[in-house]
Amino acid sequence: MTHPLDIAVVGATGSVGEALVQILEELAFPVATLHLLASMESAGSSVMFAGKKLKVREVDSFDFAQVKLAFFATGAAVSRSFAGKALQAGCTVIDLSGGLDDALALVPEANAERLASLSLPARIVSPCSAAVALAVALAPLKGLLDIERVQVMAALAVSAQGREAVSELARQTAELLNARPLEPRFFDRQVAFNLLAQVGAADEQGHTALERRLVSELRVLLGLPDLKISVSCVQVPVFFGDSFSVAVQSRRPVDLAAVNQALEAADSIERVENDDYPTPVGDAVGQDVVYVGRVRHGVDEDQQLNLWLTTDNVRKGAALNAVQVAQLLIKHMP
Amino acid sequence: MTHPLDIAVVGATGSVGEALVQILEELAFPVATLHLLASMESAGSSVMFAGKKLKVREVDSFDFAQVKLAFFATGAAVSRSFAGKALQAGCTVIDLSGGLDDALALVPEANAERLASLSLPARIVSPCSAAVALAVALAPLKGLLDIERVQVMAALAVSAQGREAVSELARQTAELLNARPLEPRFFDRQVAFNLLAQVGAADEQGHTALERRLVSELRVLLGLPDLKISVSCVQVPVFFGDSFSVAVQSRRPVDLAAVNQALEAADSIERVENDDYPTPVGDAVGQDVVYVGRVRHGVDEDQQLNLWLTTDNVRKGAALNAVQVAQLLIKHMP
Repeated sequence: MTHPLDIAVVGATGSVGEALVQILEELAFPVATLHLLASMESAGSSVMFAGKKLKVREVDSFDFAQVKLAFFATGAAVSRSFAGKALQAGCTVIDLSGGLDDALALVPEANAERLASLSLPARIVSPCSAAVALAVALAPLKGLLDIERVQVMAALAVSAQGREAVSELARQTAELLNARPLEPRFFDRQVAFNLLAQVGAADEQGHTALERRLVSELRVLLGLPDLKISVSCVQVPVFFGDSFSVAVQSRRPVDLAAVNQALEAADSIERVENDDYPTPVGDAVGQDVVYVGRVRHGVDEDQQLNLWLTTDNVRKGAALNAVQVAQLLIKHMP
Repeated sequence: MTHPLDIAVVGATGSVGEALVQILEELAFPVATLHLLASMESAGSSVMFAGKKLKVREVDSFDFAQVKLAFFATGAAVSRSFAGKALQAGCTVIDLSGGLDDALALVPEANAERLASLSLPARIVSPCSAAVALAVALAPLKGLLDIERVQVMAALAVSAQGREAVSELARQTAELLNARPLEPRFFDRQVAFNLLAQVGAADEQGHTALERRLVSELRVLLGLPDLKISVSCVQVPVFFGDSFSVAVQSRRPVDLAAVNQALEAADSIERVENDDYPTPVGDAVGQDVVYVGRVRHGVDEDQQLNLWLTTDNVRKGAALNAVQVAQLLIKHMP
């Protein structure tokens, strides 16, 4: 049994923050008092939790000594500003922003054992949605494969960029269908019926921060610090649900029957048979699992494993993973 | 100088056939008489060519002895039925259907030299759009890289599946935006705001015919019969323009400056600098080149080259390549 905990959710009005609050309720997480926090612009509104209307307050004036655990479902800058303060006040931070480079990335299905050596309070990262999906799918296969390289093309839904991005895809699509001139606002160009080959700015080497984050987080999650990972993150005109085309290169032939068995046995995975395939809309959205389909060798190559993953980026890829980390954490709390 | 040629276009009423007729006119291809042909259902309509309205006739009753060259912009079954007949009548066939497995695949930018050893009349394949794009982009790099493996995720526009598929994406999108119930017709599920992980049926090994076609054609086009190629073809909610996320594994470090120089020097390539990236809508559609962007090493890996390609699948990926093959051919004709 665990004592109910005082908890803060920073960024409670964003789509991930809202999903977080909802999941805390759904999973009957042992909450004593829930403090909902946001930046000045978003403070003042209300969010429902366990049948009560909770007011969202300003994070700037919050005393983190009041809580034992804080989720940061904010931008990276907000996490960087307040996570240190929270930690000093004795509060463990679960960060979803990607702003805390040096904190431990955790996905319970992949590296739960790392929690044992963590002294609390601590700073923990709930990784980017792509790293969560890949870690959930690859962790049960690690022992079956001698992984040399993972190659990923991530097709990301606009919702990862927040509600404005969702509205913008809808607005652009409606303008185009009505043959009205398109004036991009949130994105710098047409995203409707188009693919944007880059999500965020690229550095000198041509990689985006998200691509680098995915590589470093996945190495930690799989416990393979030298793993070769190639990744391209692409923005697709999909509202919710990220998809991943994955090729895993193994140093020995891949036993597909064993792979399918391991996928089948994993609680957080829904394996789809090869006469069908999973899609973001219709399968993944609103679900708590990672869908895995198109399980196959490479063409003429039995040392390669190909997979297609799709998952709810806001829920399983972000909010749910953070709550699952918290569920593990409370077992370690005094 | 070449003599004007009597030519047939089979499948003249389809989107690729129509683009073909238009490109023959645009490039002032030396046509004497142009015979437009189609299946019974489509025969009877008219298509404009060089200011004249040409009637589309039934392919079944056409005597291929009347022409020296026939383009087959049809389904694979039609090509299989009539290509042999055409060849026997002394007519060279350029097939765009993928139905003629044993014919030579040609992309002038990649393997034009193969024409020299071909005795006419012959059967030639204008490869699938993905193979055309990849061959155009990789041919100028072959000498700079020691290619061990090519990894491709192809994000294919619906237009590759014809006009019905284009209408279906528009119809589904409008239904969804108007919050009306969605009843898929052409596709077996929602394609609007969604990704379909598979294009066509998968075989026992989980690969689609298109994926296998891409692998075998690309090996021929690059002259590397043992090249390891991994590919996933995905249907994206884009009307026109295919995009490709490509990772090339080289056996030695990749010199990016030399790669960029070679891409810059190639006539059929438009290289986009890394502060920008090309997209199907806005860049590729309606253009005669393959756009190449996001040219970079792998993360922590200088033996890998990453690229993003996008091209007009109907035009450069199909009709234009077929006409470019024909332009080479007529130089070899007596």
